[in-house]
Amino acid sequence: PELSKRLARLIKSENNLISAHEAAGKERVSIATQLSEWGEQTNDEGISDVSDKVGVILSEMGEQEDNYAHALDESRSVLKTVRNTEKSVQPSRDGKAKIADEIARLKAKEPETAKLVVLEQELVRAEAENLVAEAQLTNITRQKLKEAYQAEFLATIERADKQIILARHGLRLLDLLDDTPVVPGDTRIPYVHASQARQILNDAEDDLRNWRP
Amino acid sequence: PELSKRLARLIKSENNLISAHEAAGKERVSIATQLSEWGEQTNDEGISDVSDKVGVILSEMGEQEDNYAHALDESRSVLKTVRNTEKSVQPSRDGKAKIADEIARLKAKEPETAKLVVLEQELVRAEAENLVAEAQLTNITRQKLKEAYQAEFLATIERADKQIILARHGLRLLDLLDDTPVVPGDTRIPYVHASQARQILNDAEDDLRNWRP
Repeated sequence: PELSKRLARLIKSENNLISAHEAAGKERVSIATQLSEWGEQTNDEGISDVSDKVGVILSEMGEQEDNYAHALDESRSVLKTVRNTEKSVQPSRDGKAKIADEIARLKAKEPETAKLVVLEQELVRAEAENLVAEAQLTNITRQKLKEAYQAEFLATIERADKQIILARHGLRLLDLLDDTPVVPGDTRIPYVHASQARQILNDAEDDLRNWRP
Repeated sequence: PELSKRLARLIKSENNLISAHEAAGKERVSIATQLSEWGEQTNDEGISDVSDKVGVILSEMGEQEDNYAHALDESRSVLKTVRNTEKSVQPSRDGKAKIADEIARLKAKEPETAKLVVLEQELVRAEAENLVAEAQLTNITRQKLKEAYQAEFLATIERADKQIILARHGLRLLDLLDDTPVVPGDTRIPYVHASQARQILNDAEDDLRNWRP
């Protein structure tokens, strides 16, 4: 199979991966809104406030998922450089091989022909050209392979770090919701944590802003 | 709209979210294999070994993505408990309202009818039944809402922690690949990091095994 076929397929799969993470991000943001709206119509102040603010956290988690998808897309375009180099090296290999074949054919059929001298010269030029192409291939392949997957791993760490920040503050928000069972007819202790919940969101924003690679 | 409609929709969206993360996990595992196979056919020992082992890391990242999808699925089934409770409370509210309406209607049209006494008794029973239903609703809703999103946040942290472990070891693997440019005709210094690469995979396995929530 042609040199660049495998990588072309891998790049296509990367595209599916990117789409999957984009879809996950979109669903997260949609769920966040739905959770907030559901909470509001329960007419329960505590559930309404906590689900609204958990919704803010989930929505931001979705944004991080989307940022991750964009980072994967950049990594994918780096892999394309490798694929393009592979593609451009193939004709150089083919050209060299074709001349060598032709020389072998003539040597067997017309060993005295003057064409052989010309072809030998052509082969030397093709070999020189191919040496350059092969050096470019190894250089580009190694540099860009590293660059692409370094970018993916760094993006994975960034998404992970930021989603951990969000999840931890999300857990703090859930702690504000009293879930001790009430008996029929009793009313719940009124919800008094609205400002605390607001503070948790501020903390989450601060932590995200202060994140460094 | 009926009480449980919104939550039913949210649960459906959670299903889409789960599918997206499952798809991402599958693509990751597929890319991992493709990367390894591509590396092998480059006939470059260094690229082949590093891309094979980066493939192992990526594959494990995909497994973690899949585990995350499963955890989300469990959280989703907890939300179903809330939806089912909402669904079962609706007839209780409707029943109470229907009797109250009937009483109001009769009071206006036939204020002396004996039916009124029976209906007033029915209303008292319906109100008592509804008090229980409403207490169940607030109790289940708060407990299960917390439980569902605590599970999601904890799963988010687990996936993030484990993918950070994998990404960091992945970066170490990429460092083993020499990408200093070679000039045409020169050969690369032979790749001698195979056992080091193997050790990095072992380190990654150890770190994953030692992970605690």
